[in-house]
Amino acid sequence: MKILLLAGDGIGPEIMVEAEKVLAVLALPVTLDRALVGGAAYAATGHPLPPETLDKAKAADAILFGAVGDPRFDNVERHLRPEQAILGLRAALGLFANLRPAKMFAGLEDASALRPEVASAIDLLIVRELNGDVYFGEKGTRTTADGQREGYDVMAYSESEVRRIAHVAFRAAQGRNKRLCSVDKANVLETSQLWRDVVIEVAAEYPDVTLTHMYVDNAAMQLVRNPGQFDVVVTGNLFGDILSDQASMCVGSIGLLASASLSEGKQGLYEPIHGSAPDIAGKGVANPLAMILSLAMLLRHSGGDEASAARIETAVAKVLADGCRGADLGGDMGTTALGDAVVSALN
Amino acid sequence: MKILLLAGDGIGPEIMVEAEKVLAVLALPVTLDRALVGGAAYAATGHPLPPETLDKAKAADAILFGAVGDPRFDNVERHLRPEQAILGLRAALGLFANLRPAKMFAGLEDASALRPEVASAIDLLIVRELNGDVYFGEKGTRTTADGQREGYDVMAYSESEVRRIAHVAFRAAQGRNKRLCSVDKANVLETSQLWRDVVIEVAAEYPDVTLTHMYVDNAAMQLVRNPGQFDVVVTGNLFGDILSDQASMCVGSIGLLASASLSEGKQGLYEPIHGSAPDIAGKGVANPLAMILSLAMLLRHSGGDEASAARIETAVAKVLADGCRGADLGGDMGTTALGDAVVSALN
Ligand SMILES: CC(C)[C@H](C(=O)O)[C@@H](O)C(=O)O
Ligand SMILES: CC(C)[C@H](C(=O)O)[C@@H](O)C(=O)O
Repeated sequence: MKILLLAGDGIGPEIMVEAEKVLAVLALPVTLDRALVGGAAYAATGHPLPPETLDKAKAADAILFGAVGDPRFDNVERHLRPEQAILGLRAALGLFANLRPAKMFAGLEDASALRPEVASAIDLLIVRELNGDVYFGEKGTRTTADGQREGYDVMAYSESEVRRIAHVAFRAAQGRNKRLCSVDKANVLETSQLWRDVVIEVAAEYPDVTLTHMYVDNAAMQLVRNPGQFDVVVTGNLFGDILSDQASMCVGSIGLLASASLSEGKQGLYEPIHGSAPDIAGKGVANPLAMILSLAMLLRHSGGDEASAARIETAVAKVLADGCRGADLGGDMGTTALGDAVVSALN
Repeated sequence: MKILLLAGDGIGPEIMVEAEKVLAVLALPVTLDRALVGGAAYAATGHPLPPETLDKAKAADAILFGAVGDPRFDNVERHLRPEQAILGLRAALGLFANLRPAKMFAGLEDASALRPEVASAIDLLIVRELNGDVYFGEKGTRTTADGQREGYDVMAYSESEVRRIAHVAFRAAQGRNKRLCSVDKANVLETSQLWRDVVIEVAAEYPDVTLTHMYVDNAAMQLVRNPGQFDVVVTGNLFGDILSDQASMCVGSIGLLASASLSEGKQGLYEPIHGSAPDIAGKGVANPLAMILSLAMLLRHSGGDEASAARIETAVAKVLADGCRGADLGGDMGTTALGDAVVSALN
């Protein structure tokens, strides 16, 4: 398996080192390559996703991705900002299915802002569509009839876009507790009405899965009130962006959650849900566990190596159950120490 | 002052009765009128917002609104659904500024899904733009080049739309703790970039207010992690819909939160944040406190009667501090009993 490592910006490089240590211990038959991405690539080449990086990404079986985002480049033209690198990779590789699992880790119930009995019930998977919606519609600034500036972005979903993400979500539900909640805003948006209609059509092929629908405002409420009610949630790109970040925080720290972005085939990109965290970059205090768990997802989904994936996840759970805590969880273990703890737990 | 009572659907009529009892006790010089709205109006006239209701609304100084939404009409054409009544009123009356305060009530810290020390710090105001965004842009279903159905909705904001809501938010911040957080998705959306640019322009007129910006995904996270960090939040129609429902649930029950929808003048519409709750309609168990607190906001913003508004709010706080609880808070007091308790507390 050919894995491309894209460390990116901020804490990306530091946490990538820890994932590489874990990969080294597993001693799997993989070849590793590296490339620049995000602000780091923009600084070096003038583009956040240089052609060389994109070529390497296309040639890889899987991409392990750190984070992009650098406040130094917040005011450059939109198409050159660090964030465009991840949007560009999602589009160019057809990574339409973003899986974001959120599950309470034993021993962390007290870290969540939610009451322990509410938090401990969290075990959900958000399936977020990643190639469409208002993210990729026509957008720009235009002048209104009365001479004002107006910003606009077109939100849209076609049948086939909804259908393929719905199939991913129904299959995921079959492998879990067979409950799927589709989140939309069909009482206001035509895009959502089409979404809902198509999800209902696809449901006919999955009679063993119970499908429900929820408006996005209610979903944001229910994720606070009782997140334990959810099994699999499927939603569009924008609502998925908001709800998955909300759900991740319910688990206690965003430094613990991994994600997979999958195409129709086995190729995938794997990244922590957190961002580049420029405020703590270079200090050796970033939590590497989400990055290490992203490696586990990579081995499972692109490598078909469930055993190694489970081995990593068990090691991370053990480290947390043993009380290892980084600064994000009120502890004092640094990035390297946490990575080392996972390595020991693997042995 | 001419007040139009629009009870609407579901629990709307039951909770409206309790607000009227409170209004009667205050014995203010107001004239009351009533009209049909939502599913109730559709059932009677074939339209959720009949011309007669709209005329009365235009003629009123203030509208006290229950709730709309009736599952019997979920599948009628979009423009005839109950929800179109509230969207239509917001548009026709130019109600562009939606104020949604969320504050922890003493004695309710244990009702929130958040840990008491997190929940008790909540005291924020969400200022949601209510006349623009993807709610009111062009929308429909079209056929793609390859013959598929596609749903679309255009998201847009013009300078003047952003400017007027920004002024409302900055002024609100001046009357509170002088901190304003503008929420957008400027790293992806042109609409958000224009929003951010204009909010920064307006900030020059309010040097005493500290302005920050936050992406909506991060805001959804921060509202769970530490909602006490927010004073005033200003955002667009769609993000405001999601975040204000999320914030309201952090307070413990959505049955406690009121909202004001204001135009450029003194006219306003006042409604609980919760919906028509068809599952509990007619059972006498709905919580009338959000409706009663909406009346308080009406007297304050449209009536300029701060004394009566504060009197109602103090009575509701007392009722809650005394341990009165409806089913939404795990208690057994019904709608009438809760309304009676507020009436007694007023005396
Ligand atoms: C960086 C940003 C463009 C991105 C998104 O909005 O998709 C991020 O928030 C995410 O969720 O991966
Ligand atoms: C009923 C619906 C159209 C409405 C909205 O989305 O604005 C509601 O959710 C609200 O927040 O008042």
